[in-house]
Amino acid sequence: MGRRRGDDAVVSTLVDEDTFVDWLRDHGVPAGDDTAFLAAGEHRAGLVLTTDSQLESVHFPEDLDPWLIAQRLVRVNLSDLSAAGSRPRWALCNLNAPPDFDRERFFAGLLADCRRWGLSLIGGDTSSARQVSSTLTAIGDLPQGRRPLTRDRARPGDRLLVAGSLGEAAAGLLLQQAGARCHRGAVELPEGLPQGLAAAARRAVRRHRLPVPDVELGLELARPLSSGRTGRRGPAAIDLSDGLLKDAHRLAGASGVRLRIDLDRLPVAASLRRLAQYLEVTPLHHALSGGEDYVLLFSLPPEHPGATAGQEIGEVCVGSGLELVRGGRDVTTEVLDQLPRLGWDHLADG
Amino acid sequence: MGRRRGDDAVVSTLVDEDTFVDWLRDHGVPAGDDTAFLAAGEHRAGLVLTTDSQLESVHFPEDLDPWLIAQRLVRVNLSDLSAAGSRPRWALCNLNAPPDFDRERFFAGLLADCRRWGLSLIGGDTSSARQVSSTLTAIGDLPQGRRPLTRDRARPGDRLLVAGSLGEAAAGLLLQQAGARCHRGAVELPEGLPQGLAAAARRAVRRHRLPVPDVELGLELARPLSSGRTGRRGPAAIDLSDGLLKDAHRLAGASGVRLRIDLDRLPVAASLRRLAQYLEVTPLHHALSGGEDYVLLFSLPPEHPGATAGQEIGEVCVGSGLELVRGGRDVTTEVLDQLPRLGWDHLADG
Repeated sequence: MGRRRGDDAVVSTLVDEDTFVDWLRDHGVPAGDDTAFLAAGEHRAGLVLTTDSQLESVHFPEDLDPWLIAQRLVRVNLSDLSAAGSRPRWALCNLNAPPDFDRERFFAGLLADCRRWGLSLIGGDTSSARQVSSTLTAIGDLPQGRRPLTRDRARPGDRLLVAGSLGEAAAGLLLQQAGARCHRGAVELPEGLPQGLAAAARRAVRRHRLPVPDVELGLELARPLSSGRTGRRGPAAIDLSDGLLKDAHRLAGASGVRLRIDLDRLPVAASLRRLAQYLEVTPLHHALSGGEDYVLLFSLPPEHPGATAGQEIGEVCVGSGLELVRGGRDVTTEVLDQLPRLGWDHLADG
Repeated sequence: MGRRRGDDAVVSTLVDEDTFVDWLRDHGVPAGDDTAFLAAGEHRAGLVLTTDSQLESVHFPEDLDPWLIAQRLVRVNLSDLSAAGSRPRWALCNLNAPPDFDRERFFAGLLADCRRWGLSLIGGDTSSARQVSSTLTAIGDLPQGRRPLTRDRARPGDRLLVAGSLGEAAAGLLLQQAGARCHRGAVELPEGLPQGLAAAARRAVRRHRLPVPDVELGLELARPLSSGRTGRRGPAAIDLSDGLLKDAHRLAGASGVRLRIDLDRLPVAASLRRLAQYLEVTPLHHALSGGEDYVLLFSLPPEHPGATAGQEIGEVCVGSGLELVRGGRDVTTEVLDQLPRLGWDHLADG
């Protein structure tokens, strides 16, 4: 099931991803991970499917280059496939947009990114609409007999890692809210931004506009251990779309464990630290709650040889929810109390 | 590739289905049929995929019951699967809607219809939006070694059949434009409608709101002939979403043939004939150009044992485009000239 920035503010039932997933489960739909798996019993190779939308005024500003809209759509879906450890193969795309929207540039951007990431566009649909909304269904495959990565395999004693820096996309979003724009590869920065911050700001805006899913790492994590190690439990993984806290909480819930996260070890994005004063934000808070980083959070069993990428940020414990540690001290309550967004307090349950 | 009522009026490139498909082909995407096929070489059973959207103010009025929106979404996608001769198996659904939209009723309706048609909902995504837009990606399968039905297999000498009455959905749409409403199973009719037309009107409105795709016929048409007949060419098929003329023209183009259609044999819907005076329409014109009937148009080779369903309406000839016959006389030009919509003249090319 996909997830949406900003949905927390909406009160209607089923808008929030977690509520939606719970509702589907109550109605017999095997929901949970952001991807669905068609198993090898029915098809020689397992298929992994995901679908995610990008909407004007929700996920991108009205004047965003259609080329970038299309490529962002590809990337957020690929991020889901990466979290399932599958190889991108096929895509179907729906575009609904006003008559004056540059559809040709959208689909040219889409095809360019599909080629880059190994996706074949095999279907689509266009329609006229008042608001631009684009949906991609992406399909990946898994070699015969291989299971997809899921969120539910973390066990006490596992290490917890994150494969990329945190909070940079959130900084990029703030910069766009301050006036930064992205068009045809160029980033226009907000007026008044100190010259020394230009490089960091461009990087943050690009990181938000065009995330780079870690498909290779997903494939590596899903690879079975060598024959002497068959039967061993694999990693659990989730891609960070809604921020470390929220997505870590989902992984903890799916696995039935508690995740202890050492705040001193978080890979806070360097550009976020540089921009913090200008943006008037606390880097740690953005690293914890800023969404759309699209990096993988994953657990590794003790006997697992480890991944080539990833910063260890904590461990998997008995219990439920999250435990935030700084300087060896449990700071869960005080950190969650400081976070500006509502709704974080329930993450510490258990 | 999907198709949209009303897109003819939109001038932007790539909004029109045929232009979109041409553009995709020019860019190396194997587009053409409304479904994509993942062949048996890669998976033991072939998979057929399609995706189609339903948008507020484009495909349904703003006040339509969310239950019906969801089920119409299921049906239009199933119609594409039926035209490919595949068995419905899985679906992924995206819903974008304003906060006050009744998502729970939408998904309850969706799940009810998925169950009815043998679809398992395996993924989805919700987001907030100004305009309700819903997208379904439906996946069907084919038994091992079986090829999907396509539009390109009609050959001169084949019979041409249509499996259902024509023009009733278009009458239903006109009734809704005149004030008919559908909610929780009940149809409210326009004020001033003669009492004697109530049953026909309700039937037409329901036919428009909730089409009944002919999945069983699609499966039957895709079944290989008995062993003594292997290697024989199968039927060609398309579902009628944009009206007989437009979709017949597509089938003719894909197969490289001319379709001769006998207007005297068209199964014009009885309710359309009854409502014609009230609606001030010519039944034949609506049978030819009224969209959203979602019945199958198909060709049968001479040696083919035939289908259990279907009215023979003409034959496949050498040439291209369409030839309309009435009383044994070619009336193509005069009929197309009478049709109220622009753009029909090109259907008689060749």
